[in-house]
Amino acid sequence: MPSARVHRISANAPDDFSGLEAAIDAGAIDPASIIAIFGKTEGNGLVNDFSRALAVEALRRLLHGHLADLAVRAVCTVMSGGTEGGMAPHWLVFERRPGDAEDFPGAALAVGRAHTTQLPTEHLGRIDQARMVAEGVATAMKDAGITNADDVHFVQIKCPLLTAKRIRKAEASGKNVVIRDTLKSMGWSRGASAIGVGPALGEIDHALVTEGSILNDRSLWSARASASAGIELLSHEIVVLGMSSAWSGPLAIDHTVMADGIDVGPVRDTLARLGADPGQPSHKGKVVGLLAKAEASTDGILRGSRHTMNDDSDISSTRHARAFVAGALGAVISHAELFVSGGAEHQGPDGGGPVAIIVQREKLCP
Amino acid sequence: MPSARVHRISANAPDDFSGLEAAIDAGAIDPASIIAIFGKTEGNGLVNDFSRALAVEALRRLLHGHLADLAVRAVCTVMSGGTEGGMAPHWLVFERRPGDAEDFPGAALAVGRAHTTQLPTEHLGRIDQARMVAEGVATAMKDAGITNADDVHFVQIKCPLLTAKRIRKAEASGKNVVIRDTLKSMGWSRGASAIGVGPALGEIDHALVTEGSILNDRSLWSARASASAGIELLSHEIVVLGMSSAWSGPLAIDHTVMADGIDVGPVRDTLARLGADPGQPSHKGKVVGLLAKAEASTDGILRGSRHTMNDDSDISSTRHARAFVAGALGAVISHAELFVSGGAEHQGPDGGGPVAIIVQREKLCP
Amino acid sequence: MPSARVHRISANAPDDFSGLEAAIDAGAIDPASIIAIFGKTEGNGLVNDFSRALAVEALRRLLHGHLADLAVRAVCTVMSGGTEGGMAPHWLVFERRPGDAEDFPGAALAVGRAHTTQLPTEHLGRIDQARMVAEGVATAMKDAGITNADDVHFVQIKCPLLTAKRIRKAEASGKNVVIRDTLKSMGWSRGASAIGVGPALGEIDHALVTEGSILNDRSLWSARASASAGIELLSHEIVVLGMSSAWSGPLAIDHTVMADGIDVGPVRDTLARLGADPGQPSHKGKVVGLLAKAEASTDGILRGSRHTMNDDSDISSTRHARAFVAGALGAVISHAELFVSGGAEHQGPDGGGPVAIIVQREKLCP
Amino acid sequence: MPSARVHRISANAPDDFSGLEAAIDAGAIDPASIIAIFGKTEGNGLVNDFSRALAVEALRRLLHGHLADLAVRAVCTVMSGGTEGGMAPHWLVFERRPGDAEDFPGAALAVGRAHTTQLPTEHLGRIDQARMVAEGVATAMKDAGITNADDVHFVQIKCPLLTAKRIRKAEASGKNVVIRDTLKSMGWSRGASAIGVGPALGEIDHALVTEGSILNDRSLWSARASASAGIELLSHEIVVLGMSSAWSGPLAIDHTVMADGIDVGPVRDTLARLGADPGQPSHKGKVVGLLAKAEASTDGILRGSRHTMNDDSDISSTRHARAFVAGALGAVISHAELFVSGGAEHQGPDGGGPVAIIVQREKLCP
Repeated sequence: MPSARVHRISANAPDDFSGLEAAIDAGAIDPASIIAIFGKTEGNGLVNDFSRALAVEALRRLLHGHLADLAVRAVCTVMSGGTEGGMAPHWLVFERRPGDAEDFPGAALAVGRAHTTQLPTEHLGRIDQARMVAEGVATAMKDAGITNADDVHFVQIKCPLLTAKRIRKAEASGKNVVIRDTLKSMGWSRGASAIGVGPALGEIDHALVTEGSILNDRSLWSARASASAGIELLSHEIVVLGMSSAWSGPLAIDHTVMADGIDVGPVRDTLARLGADPGQPSHKGKVVGLLAKAEASTDGILRGSRHTMNDDSDISSTRHARAFVAGALGAVISHAELFVSGGAEHQGPDGGGPVAIIVQREKLCP
Repeated sequence: MPSARVHRISANAPDDFSGLEAAIDAGAIDPASIIAIFGKTEGNGLVNDFSRALAVEALRRLLHGHLADLAVRAVCTVMSGGTEGGMAPHWLVFERRPGDAEDFPGAALAVGRAHTTQLPTEHLGRIDQARMVAEGVATAMKDAGITNADDVHFVQIKCPLLTAKRIRKAEASGKNVVIRDTLKSMGWSRGASAIGVGPALGEIDHALVTEGSILNDRSLWSARASASAGIELLSHEIVVLGMSSAWSGPLAIDHTVMADGIDVGPVRDTLARLGADPGQPSHKGKVVGLLAKAEASTDGILRGSRHTMNDDSDISSTRHARAFVAGALGAVISHAELFVSGGAEHQGPDGGGPVAIIVQREKLCP
Repeated sequence: MPSARVHRISANAPDDFSGLEAAIDAGAIDPASIIAIFGKTEGNGLVNDFSRALAVEALRRLLHGHLADLAVRAVCTVMSGGTEGGMAPHWLVFERRPGDAEDFPGAALAVGRAHTTQLPTEHLGRIDQARMVAEGVATAMKDAGITNADDVHFVQIKCPLLTAKRIRKAEASGKNVVIRDTLKSMGWSRGASAIGVGPALGEIDHALVTEGSILNDRSLWSARASASAGIELLSHEIVVLGMSSAWSGPLAIDHTVMADGIDVGPVRDTLARLGADPGQPSHKGKVVGLLAKAEASTDGILRGSRHTMNDDSDISSTRHARAFVAGALGAVISHAELFVSGGAEHQGPDGGGPVAIIVQREKLCP
Repeated sequence: MPSARVHRISANAPDDFSGLEAAIDAGAIDPASIIAIFGKTEGNGLVNDFSRALAVEALRRLLHGHLADLAVRAVCTVMSGGTEGGMAPHWLVFERRPGDAEDFPGAALAVGRAHTTQLPTEHLGRIDQARMVAEGVATAMKDAGITNADDVHFVQIKCPLLTAKRIRKAEASGKNVVIRDTLKSMGWSRGASAIGVGPALGEIDHALVTEGSILNDRSLWSARASASAGIELLSHEIVVLGMSSAWSGPLAIDHTVMADGIDVGPVRDTLARLGADPGQPSHKGKVVGLLAKAEASTDGILRGSRHTMNDDSDISSTRHARAFVAGALGAVISHAELFVSGGAEHQGPDGGGPVAIIVQREKLCP
């Protein structure tokens, strides 16, 4: 019976994996059992965010010291740029270990992954991308040993974006792209990815997902999809997190949805369901990871008042939203080593987003 | 017996005073009794933030329709730029009215103001500025009828900044400025202002405030000073908010200090002291205004983790901090029409800042 | 016979019209004869650029001291935000004076203007806007007394943009907007305006301008249109500059097109045609105004090499382009008090843009 | 007799060394003879520019495929961030080859390098850094075989900067840093480096360079120093370029100084001296590399007019200056694959900067 382990490791820079290295040296992490690494890196989280690629380069250099190239490539690396506000850059390392002696009754955190093939440039932001992601989610669920989609609590997708050069190349061969604006292409890629997760998890009716619904029909959303676009890949990396009785160990995950950027009530409730009392400052040790999506509502309104995130031409609304939501969530869990990712198209309702929390359960005395 | 009234009015743009105009037309606000107007405007809150000057221009144009020029100039206009994250642009209009019939036992909100003379460019960020502000605070306290400094809960100061042109002019006449970096000059102006408030309120020993302590000795801070620098003035506008038994009316104010950007516990306690239960979503109506300062800690650490606000060369740390703290506070009071101002040098501890809350008390049935 | 005068006046701030005031006081400018004022103001030139509105507010306050409100409103105010690189903020004041004794043979600079009605939000970026602008150009030509479109050398248009609030309002009444991205709306507004100028000047076949060609068919462009979008108006202000034998005076204008941002050869040729020798540093005095459009090529290529303006998510490509082209043109005319405006959709070829130069001709001795 | 070769290779991304790889595969470049690689990468050129570190990571990965680690570390990698305006990202690869048969009479381009030890954090921006760089320049001159300082035409220095973490560490051990602002630390590092070059080349009297002159006495400057700060190193990498009769080959270098950002006259003169006629568009092939420094004048004035680069809090003045100067220089040499580096403290006069041009001379027929 496998057991998932999750390590949250602080990063001093986008290429700082000294904490991971130390954990490997100390035997706390076995490189061969790493299946995915998520990272919050300190770039702008937009098109020209090279902190993500730098992290991938440095991570692979480290892993190549321990693993064969094929095994290195198999590790899902989901680098999410943008640590606005007080958010702390960090890594979340997911291991799949043989079952622990220290077991818990019932289900435990299960982790699965999938890599898709390269996405043709002209498919980005279109139904083809949604389908490719849906297949990837099915593969990752299988990899996690989760058969019931209700047991999935989070699907993290790293998806590509368009650059001027990629657009030029596609157009030179007679293709047309969904949008020529590179920054906007990130939203199209995230949106098509997320709208592909919905049907895969039974949240959205397959029939409703059409070419025209992407970025248009905001009533279609997944409560568990989290997509992050980056310049550093051309395919998708998909990681499914859920609960499974085929897995053992002290970790558990649950999720909820924030209706807007300050809707922390459901997050407190989720912490309570997981046995992590938000009123206690000591619960920092119990919350292993908090993953959330943040975005500005498209109508420019928050709780009846006007916000200015969509009218600010100096700072992207995703950067505003990450800082804002990190403040709201940091105040709940009393620290800011949070995985808040920006741009939540079809990920939660307009202006809101999914939140997943992984906790370390305490062993009850017999 | 005077009575203070505070009106929170949404702004659709930096020059949108249609809400104020409507309130005047409806008789809800008497232009002649306005003593100060605070505004959160949607610029960058930095040197080249012209939203503040635009607001002042538009506001004065409106007031000139109702008041003589001298009376218009007497109104303190404190425009604070920067509505990052979900923060909502709005105005806080302070009136000093003849006492209401509807009276409350004990003290009530008292408001006083002062305008200083123009600050010589070479005094900015130096002990001379601190002294000028200290005198202004004394004048404003007198204007508010507050004799005991302990009854002051907030001192809002609008202070000038340096521009390339002002520096050039000063240097041409043989003066030297505290710093030639215009953006940094905002911090020096805020810092010198705040360190002047401390002794005026009995919070800091006069003897400790020297030229060398400004921006250097972070152990010296006021729990009630809030300074905001702007390109649109060369003097200071100072508004003192406190409780006084010489004033009547339903409004009350209290203050606290956040130790860092997510330290919302003291804010909840202050709401409770004021009888505004933070657990109730309905309390939006009771909180008339929330004023807070936000900043990034200078050591780059928040709750033991690294933040990146000081290493981001694309976005000023003050913009990050405003968005982050607005998220934390917005989640507490369930909306984001907040007056969060950035840059808290000598205003609260390093990385934290003062918070003041004005509430409308409910009349008890006899 | 009217005579045009053009005054280039330095601005110390977006609301600094002290130079204009001094010129009025000295009798050098007659407020009643001002027909248009162009300004380069130091905002970001994007959606949240409040330097433009501030300039308009301050300018109107000054003009109200000299003119009736109707006359003030009749003055075309074209504020173009963005003085990147070394560009100098300044005003260009256009007067229409009774003919001077000092006459020049043949044609002279002629100036005409038009104000359109308010553009319905849902028309922005669509064929309706193009048509509205085309009509405005015809009106302005008539006002300038220019009958042959070949005599027009520059058409400056100030056009509106979309804000979150305007979009919300339009959508609430069942309309749909051309784009929901406020920053992108500026390009749509400029593009639709410019593509309307083309047919009006006989540069583009009427039949080719369809809804689908706006921002799509880059082969359709005007060599004389210059459009600048701003948040501060809902209609269009249109100023036509040309040569007419019905006008007298020492001023002359000519135009050319840069093929890309460093294509200064045609600009040197135009200076030569106008008798302003670019090799002479003294020609600063002769060039009264230089107006140009700048943009990043959509294919991301400049002279065969990759540029990164379209992939930079921190700085808008229009800001990059203005700084870059200002450097190229400043080196040609030996100073940087230039009116370089960003975003040249359908204004010159992709990546390039129109340039117009106004010079003061020297009187030949008899 | 050694011969220098310089290859200018376009970069499609900060980690794109496919052009270098192809040149190595084709035998055009011998990895073992590479002594330095300069790169213009497309980050912000400021503290959080990770494009530079990404380039170094990717370059070293490639070189490790050809060379032993020690040899890889010996290659000077000078990554300069910021390709604003139309500037094209590219690499300049410097080889030291055994002398070519194809010889030119007299001197030829000579290249030398030096690596300094790590700079203690508290020395940055101080006289100790200036001294360390001066010693490094002497070492690099020796390496280049240049004995007369007059034969040096450019000294490129890559120097470190301060981060919040480095400051924290230094302060924890009782040291104090020259400045706590990380962005400003770049200027201090560049300034101290450049002021160290001056005496080493006999341009500045040793006695004049004191702790107090750094960033204060702008009359002290080198006409040949070019310093670029980066987060990716803690020591200095120094490359000296000059002319030496101990070297052979077709390449030649010369330098000049621009008095301000549009002072292109001296650049044209230098091209003429080198036999590269700026009037001919064909001279692109002859100019192998153009290296320049750009900065905003500290007094905020350019040719008598105000510039706004120092008052823009959204975009660093170095980014403005690079775009602007790239426009001016690109118009001179008809393309924009230029190595324009920002921040020219003590590198040329205030507001200006050194320019060096490397050309491929044509073999005269016998």
